[in-house]
Amino acid sequence: MAKYIVGVDIGGTKILAALALRNGKIIKTISLPTQAEKGKAVSLNNVKKAIRMVLSQTKTPLSRISAIGVGAPGPMLYKQGIIINPPNLPGWKKVNLRKILQREFRKPVFIDNDANAAALAEFRFGAGRGTKNMVYLTISTGIGGGIIIDKKLYRGGIGGAGEIGHMIIQINGPKCGCGNRGCLEALASGKAMAELARELVKINKRSLIYKLAEGKIKKITAITIEKASKARDRLALSIINEIGRRLGTGIANIINILEPDKVVIGGGLSSIGKPLFTSIRKTAKELSLEPGRSSTKIVPAKFKREAGIRGAVALCLDGSF
Amino acid sequence: MAKYIVGVDIGGTKILAALALRNGKIIKTISLPTQAEKGKAVSLNNVKKAIRMVLSQTKTPLSRISAIGVGAPGPMLYKQGIIINPPNLPGWKKVNLRKILQREFRKPVFIDNDANAAALAEFRFGAGRGTKNMVYLTISTGIGGGIIIDKKLYRGGIGGAGEIGHMIIQINGPKCGCGNRGCLEALASGKAMAELARELVKINKRSLIYKLAEGKIKKITAITIEKASKARDRLALSIINEIGRRLGTGIANIINILEPDKVVIGGGLSSIGKPLFTSIRKTAKELSLEPGRSSTKIVPAKFKREAGIRGAVALCLDGSF
Repeated sequence: MAKYIVGVDIGGTKILAALALRNGKIIKTISLPTQAEKGKAVSLNNVKKAIRMVLSQTKTPLSRISAIGVGAPGPMLYKQGIIINPPNLPGWKKVNLRKILQREFRKPVFIDNDANAAALAEFRFGAGRGTKNMVYLTISTGIGGGIIIDKKLYRGGIGGAGEIGHMIIQINGPKCGCGNRGCLEALASGKAMAELARELVKINKRSLIYKLAEGKIKKITAITIEKASKARDRLALSIINEIGRRLGTGIANIINILEPDKVVIGGGLSSIGKPLFTSIRKTAKELSLEPGRSSTKIVPAKFKREAGIRGAVALCLDGSF
Repeated sequence: MAKYIVGVDIGGTKILAALALRNGKIIKTISLPTQAEKGKAVSLNNVKKAIRMVLSQTKTPLSRISAIGVGAPGPMLYKQGIIINPPNLPGWKKVNLRKILQREFRKPVFIDNDANAAALAEFRFGAGRGTKNMVYLTISTGIGGGIIIDKKLYRGGIGGAGEIGHMIIQINGPKCGCGNRGCLEALASGKAMAELARELVKINKRSLIYKLAEGKIKKITAITIEKASKARDRLALSIINEIGRRLGTGIANIINILEPDKVVIGGGLSSIGKPLFTSIRKTAKELSLEPGRSSTKIVPAKFKREAGIRGAVALCLDGSF
């Protein structure tokens, strides 16, 4: 009798595959390099290989699997399971991943983008448990989002919802990777934070950031700033405060529009912790209206690297599709 | 047997009350001055009076009424039906309107803010019919919003959702009535449009706007600009284009966040028609991502002045609460 599900998290660098119980509990996770740079045929084959590998390592016959859930980079048409040319999977132009995996494994396949999957993971198993309406933001190199409404993943009409990183909060602001200007992502992602730091370190070389980057301004990343902040470096803290203000502005907008029970913040930048969250919360409170100002809580995500794989598993659970 | 419902639309200037069938069809609407300036006791009494008046004019005994729906100015706690000090109802500090009307008429009373009620009217009877997810914007002196998700009014946790007018699209932008800066309302409401026109007419007195305002710049309102635009006045058209760009930016954000089937635009400014909608649509398309860019339609509202009263009726229909 089928009693397990398989979750797959396809990233630009590595593929995770997990065997899980049908209540979402993960039994075993394995990891495989994506080899995205080798093109579609190789990376797609690695997805199949990862699934077979987690099955063989747990000695689980395919007959015990009831469904396969996949979190993959967007853009995509989630209903059809078609991946549309994501920046970090070169060659994946309109790949009907659902059809490919269904043919290969003869199981139902559920696919959604990684931010939606992570949102679902936080809602089902993490910081968003018990909420009815929740917004998830992942802040790393870029900014992604996922929306839970009435205890279900909200995807919009054809899967376009949740692009919170491309909400414009500064008309004519700095250029974003998407081509527009003043998106939250252009102002408050890890990339934007590093850029801000590079600007400011030039005129403030006494900052620990400069030292940690070994005097090479180009080497400054969000992690450099995080490290400097742990040592209470003043410039690092003021940069984090400014990024928190920008994130807080975007989150105030989310509160004014959706008044979710919680806004859950994950991704690399969330590990900065208190200084970032203090600034985000202060600004979001300042810029949102009652009753949302008081009712919406802003909390760190529970899952770091495992959000994607847990989300992929959650996609197979009742009510996610 | 009860077969009718009563809808009440409480505005700062007038109160409308309607008798409707339980399918939403309106049989008769009456209007009464709110007399808001005379304070709470008088204006609250006028609400009761309006209800009694529509009943007596249609010779309908109270026993035939199954419910009363009320659209009122926010902020409010919709579940409890408590109105919290709206700017245009002086003295209404924490008025438990539901309790007051239930005691008076011994009927179930459903209350929500006017923008939510209008959103519901467009969804049920107007430009949003047949959609699953819809966002309504009313653009007049201010900017209000209402969100339909999965064919139901979405109110957030305790009724704070839909404050789309207070989405910040310009950090450090112009001051808004809410106290923040750079809100959509501060940049793109009828008030903002009139202010922009006053600035520009000063240096462009050959515009028809100046003539229509009889040379008094203070007299310029959104209606002056609309009138001038109908005569193809260039300045009026360029002002409308600019306001459309700002609205289009806010709507692109809505598309990126929610990807609704439709964005329905009502309120006084929507009667400007084509030049405004052309600019809104162009900008929203430019600034939103696929698939929402192609899937979300931006359309004018069906109802003008009667949106509120139709919404008040709709609040009593199945599924609205």
